[in-house]
Amino acid sequence: MGLIALLTDFGMRDGYVASMKAVIQSIAPESKVIDISHDISPQNIEEAGFVLWTAYRYFPRKTIFACVIDPGVGTKRNLIAVKTRDYLFLAPDNGLLDMVLSELEIKRSVRVMREKYFLKNVSNTFHGRDIIAPIASHMMKGVKLKSFGPSITIEKPKTPFQQVSIKGAYNGLIIYIDRFGNLVSNFKMNKPRKAELVIGNYRIPLQKAYGDAKKGEPLALVGSTGLVEIAVRDGSAKDLLHALYKTPVTLNVK
Amino acid sequence: MGLIALLTDFGMRDGYVASMKAVIQSIAPESKVIDISHDISPQNIEEAGFVLWTAYRYFPRKTIFACVIDPGVGTKRNLIAVKTRDYLFLAPDNGLLDMVLSELEIKRSVRVMREKYFLKNVSNTFHGRDIIAPIASHMMKGVKLKSFGPSITIEKPKTPFQQVSIKGAYNGLIIYIDRFGNLVSNFKMNKPRKAELVIGNYRIPLQKAYGDAKKGEPLALVGSTGLVEIAVRDGSAKDLLHALYKTPVTLNVK
Amino acid sequence: MGLIALLTDFGMRDGYVASMKAVIQSIAPESKVIDISHDISPQNIEEAGFVLWTAYRYFPRKTIFACVIDPGVGTKRNLIAVKTRDYLFLAPDNGLLDMVLSELEIKRSVRVMREKYFLKNVSNTFHGRDIIAPIASHMMKGVKLKSFGPSITIEKPKTPFQQVSIKGAYNGLIIYIDRFGNLVSNFKMNKPRKAELVIGNYRIPLQKAYGDAKKGEPLALVGSTGLVEIAVRDGSAKDLLHALYKTPVTLNVK
Repeated sequence: MGLIALLTDFGMRDGYVASMKAVIQSIAPESKVIDISHDISPQNIEEAGFVLWTAYRYFPRKTIFACVIDPGVGTKRNLIAVKTRDYLFLAPDNGLLDMVLSELEIKRSVRVMREKYFLKNVSNTFHGRDIIAPIASHMMKGVKLKSFGPSITIEKPKTPFQQVSIKGAYNGLIIYIDRFGNLVSNFKMNKPRKAELVIGNYRIPLQKAYGDAKKGEPLALVGSTGLVEIAVRDGSAKDLLHALYKTPVTLNVK
Repeated sequence: MGLIALLTDFGMRDGYVASMKAVIQSIAPESKVIDISHDISPQNIEEAGFVLWTAYRYFPRKTIFACVIDPGVGTKRNLIAVKTRDYLFLAPDNGLLDMVLSELEIKRSVRVMREKYFLKNVSNTFHGRDIIAPIASHMMKGVKLKSFGPSITIEKPKTPFQQVSIKGAYNGLIIYIDRFGNLVSNFKMNKPRKAELVIGNYRIPLQKAYGDAKKGEPLALVGSTGLVEIAVRDGSAKDLLHALYKTPVTLNVK
Repeated sequence: MGLIALLTDFGMRDGYVASMKAVIQSIAPESKVIDISHDISPQNIEEAGFVLWTAYRYFPRKTIFACVIDPGVGTKRNLIAVKTRDYLFLAPDNGLLDMVLSELEIKRSVRVMREKYFLKNVSNTFHGRDIIAPIASHMMKGVKLKSFGPSITIEKPKTPFQQVSIKGAYNGLIIYIDRFGNLVSNFKMNKPRKAELVIGNYRIPLQKAYGDAKKGEPLALVGSTGLVEIAVRDGSAKDLLHALYKTPVTLNVK
C-alpha cells in the first residue's frame, strides 16, 4: 500500500478535499492518503512550499506528493510532475516546489497533459479533483511519469536558506509563522552556537529549549527543522513582537 | 476494504469524531473512513446537504455515507437509511439528504430502530457515536438494510437548482459560500453561455476561469459543481459584495 | 492492522502532525492512524486530558495512544509509556494522562529513554516527531514496553469527578467547554435524577434532551460522557452564560 500525501489551501469545511480523496479511492483503492495540510492561507504558495519542505523528508520512499495551491487554475499555467531519488511531486508550476527542489536532485520531470488520465469532465476551477487526484492515483498504480506528458527541464531553484557557520553578522528574514506564533527565520544552523538574534528593538539570545526562557519572555533556538526560530515561553512570539512574514532579522554569531 | 464517509458539525477539537471512528474500528476494523467535513456550521442542515451533494458522486460504489447534523438528537426525530443504486446514506430525517436524493433513485429506505445494532448504552445527546457509527459499521459488514428497521417511503425531494439553458432572465439565490469566499448560486449550467449575473448593484459578466478577471475584481463562472458562482480574483467575493446565504441573484442569459 | 491514536495541540496547518504520521508510516507502514484531536488549545494539558478521556474507551483493544501536549519539551521532563489492561498510552509526564489513569488499572509503566528507538537526530523542540512517533511505531511492531526504558511507579491519580447519587447540594465546576458552547461539569450521574443546576444567577432544570428546552433557553442534561452539562437549544451556553473554564457550579439533587 503506497502513500499519497495531500497539500492544499482548500480547508476542511467545503468537501473539496473529500472529493479529491474520493477520486483517489475510486481509481487506486489500495492507496493510503496522508494530509500534510489543507489550511494553507488561500493562494499562499510560499507558505505551502515551506510546510511541504518541513515534512516531506520524513515520508517513506515512493510517497507521491499531490500539492494544490493553484491561483492560476483554468489559465495556461502548467501542471508538473517531478521525480527525485525517493519521491514523486505533483503541483502547479508556480514555485510551490522550489524549496523542496532546491535540495533534491531531479531525476525526471514532465508537463502533465495526457487527458486520458484526467477525469472525463475537467472543470475550469478544480484541477485538484479533476487532474491532480487522478494523476496521483495512476502514478500509484504504476503508470510511468513519461506517460503523463512531455519531458521538461526544471532549473534547480536557489536555496532560500542561509547556512550559518562561522562568526559574524547575518541578515535574513522571517519565512514562516506557525500555529504557536513561533517565528521561523531562514538561518540554518547545524550545530547550536553562541548567538543573538535581533528583531526590531529586541536582542534575543539563542538558547536550547523553550523551557530555558522565563514565562512570557522571548528566546531564539534552533527549531525542529534546523532553522533558527523565535519563540515565547508559554506565549506567542508573533503577538509579543508584532512580527510579520518577511520581517527582517539579524543573527550575530559569536 | 469498503469506505465510510463521515459528515458532521462536530469540529475536530472535541474528540467526538474520534469517538465515532473508534466505534467503527471496533466493529468493522477493515473499513476505511474518509472525512467529508466536520466543520459544517453548528446545526446547519442546508450547508451539510450542499457539501454532501458536491462530493458524493466522486466516491466509489458501495460507499456508506454517515451524516450527523442532528439538532433533534434525543427527541422523536427518526434516523433513516437510504439505498440508491450506488450508495448507502444514513442520516437524521431532517432534510439533510434532500439535495442528494433529488437526483438519485431510491431503491429502499428504512427507519433505523433495531437496538441490537446500537451501542449498549445509548446517550440522549450523541447518536452519531451510539447509533450511526455502529449502524454504518454493521452495514459495512454486510448486514442488510431491512435488518435495521421497518421500510419507509421517502418522497423524492424537489430539486433546488434551476437549469439554465435558453436565453432570458432567471431569478435565483446564493446557496453556499465556500472557504475562499466564493458565492455559489443555484443556477445550473451545463455549457458556459454568454451571461451576466446581477447581485445588489453589481453586474458581473460570466467568464471562464478565475484568471480572466483582474486582481480584486469580481467575476462569475461555472464552478466545479456545474453551478454558477461569483469569485474575486485573489480575493473574496463574500467580503467584497457583503453577500449572505440566500442573497437573491439574477442571471441574464444572452 | 493496529491503531495509533494521536492527540496533540499542533493544529493541522503547519505540517507537524503530517511529520509524525510520516514517521509512523516509515517505521510501521501497516499501522492505521486515527486523529483524536490536534486542536487542543496550545499547551492546555487539562483540555487534552479531558478529550482523551471522552474518547479512549471507544477504541478497540491494543490501541496505542500517542499524546503530545508538551510545554516542557527539551527540558528534563520525562516521557512515559503506560500499559493498562486494554491500551498503551504514551505522553509527557505532565498530568495529561491523569484523568484516564484515575479509572484504569496500570499494568506496567516505564520512562521512555532508549535512544535506539528514537529518530537519529532528536531536536529540542519536537519530540512528537523524533521520539513519540517512532516509539509508538515500535510498540505497534511488537517491541515490549520494558525495552523502552526503566520501570517507574505511577501513583493512581485522584478522580476529578463527583459521583452524584443521593439528594443534596453538590459543589463542582466547569471542566470543559465544547465546540457547541456546551459547558461540561464534573458531576457524574449514572441515572438521570430530578435536579437543578445553579451557575451565576441561573437556575437550570435538568432535562432529557436538547429538544426539551425552548430555542435560546438553557437546559442541563446528562451528556454523552455521563457528566452533567449545560446547553442552549440552537445556541451556545458559553455565550449566553459567559462561563469560563473552572466556573463554579452547584447541583441541587431533589
